[in-house]
Amino acid sequence: MRGKFITFEGPEGAGKTTIMEMVYNYYKQKEVQILSTREPGGIHIAEEIRKVILNPDHTTMDGRTEALLYAAARRQHLVEKVVPALENGTTVFCDRFIDSSLAYQGFARELGIEEVFQINQFAIGHTMPDLTIYFDLDPEVGLQRINETQGREINRLDLEKLDFHRKVREGYLLLVEKFPSRIMKINADQSIENVYKDVINQLEALLS
Amino acid sequence: MRGKFITFEGPEGAGKTTIMEMVYNYYKQKEVQILSTREPGGIHIAEEIRKVILNPDHTTMDGRTEALLYAAARRQHLVEKVVPALENGTTVFCDRFIDSSLAYQGFARELGIEEVFQINQFAIGHTMPDLTIYFDLDPEVGLQRINETQGREINRLDLEKLDFHRKVREGYLLLVEKFPSRIMKINADQSIENVYKDVINQLEALLS
Ligand SMILES: Nc1ncnc2c1ncn2[C@@H]1O[C@H](COP(=O)(O)OP(=O)(O)OP(=O)(O)O)[C@@H](O)[C@H]1O
Ligand SMILES: Nc1ncnc2c1ncn2[C@@H]1O[C@H](COP(=O)(O)OP(=O)(O)OP(=O)(O)O)[C@@H](O)[C@H]1O
Ligand SMILES: [Mg+2]
Ligand SMILES: [Mg+2]
Repeated sequence: MRGKFITFEGPEGAGKTTIMEMVYNYYKQKEVQILSTREPGGIHIAEEIRKVILNPDHTTMDGRTEALLYAAARRQHLVEKVVPALENGTTVFCDRFIDSSLAYQGFARELGIEEVFQINQFAIGHTMPDLTIYFDLDPEVGLQRINETQGREINRLDLEKLDFHRKVREGYLLLVEKFPSRIMKINADQSIENVYKDVINQLEALLS
Repeated sequence: MRGKFITFEGPEGAGKTTIMEMVYNYYKQKEVQILSTREPGGIHIAEEIRKVILNPDHTTMDGRTEALLYAAARRQHLVEKVVPALENGTTVFCDRFIDSSLAYQGFARELGIEEVFQINQFAIGHTMPDLTIYFDLDPEVGLQRINETQGREINRLDLEKLDFHRKVREGYLLLVEKFPSRIMKINADQSIENVYKDVINQLEALLS
């Protein structure tokens, strides 16, 4: 049987990476065949594409060029790593996927959710996630968590970012409305233990 | 007034580069403000993307990854070089553009003309060519011309390629049907002088 494809989405500091690791360990112990990944996931071509995107010299990079490059890296990671695992019956957890592009670039950067969806549709073909866990959180709280991790205060630049991240959240909430059967919204403004429990609850139906 | 955007399309050896240079010189002498370019056109980010596409080590590159990368490079070349020229009233000649992706990758490589069109639509936005000159030619003739230039005979590998190039031509002919008011088909199986005259005839209405 084909494995399930589950993605973890949400703003920075929402706890995606933390919780994904916990649920990964939980299912690993239950001997579920499982792969945990994130783009570019060690896929050489995808890494090369990311280098072009992230090169600080590329100051003239257009937003649409960037969106196409993200879609290209996504495609290669999917084809080389995710799809072979799924076909092999492995459950795949992926830290961020198509919805990050829709919320960040489509909505917050205003390229258009529909338009960014189309190029990502081309990139992923039929391999849409079976389930997406969306960690919903006031971005101020997420930012606070990250700043605490790094041991520094919120500064003016962070506050500017805040407006952007509010828009990102708004984008995610639109996606929850648009894909109600695929995206499950989790309240990420709880203790790690309680978020973890909510996520396990969502996953149990699919993975047990 | 916004400049006209004119693209030159067709199979290998059809004479695109040769004729484009001749008509460029013709209009240059008539003091038309004109720019001649081809992707990636010296645009640094587009060159970097092309390096990822053309790197011979990238043997696992998926066809859709490649199509997205071509669209990304196209976008950047367009934004940095073509659009500023057009806005400045300059006529732009471009050697190959969106229709090459549609004919080669969409049709001949079977990714789907419609699907490749959508990602390219995202890449180019409203900047579709005002006019496209399509050099129609039996690919065997085009191949012969290139081989003669390089001073060698057609070999078995070239003949295998021939099937692919026949499909490319079929793709272009579908595009001529699909965009009858934009794409002008020129018989490229004539002397250089006669092809040149036919192209000038097509351009005169637009550029005089
Ligand atoms: N529910 C929670 N309550 C308090 N702190 C949390 C909670 N979840 C995660 N954290 C802490 O917040 C910080 C960021 O968490 P994490 O890295 O998992 O977020 P993320 O969603 O992966 O962010 P990014 O998008 O930046 O990768 C970490 O220090 C983590 O321990
Ligand atoms: N009408 C013609 N008759 C005979 N030879 C021609 C004609 N047009 C071009 N050639 C010759 O064919 C060769 C290929 O021409 P050219 O490079 O212009 O083709 P092209 O369409 O740009 O090909 P490519 O797609 O490979 O760039 C050149 O040697 C050129 O001189
Ligand atoms: Mg993380
Ligand atoms: Mg040429």
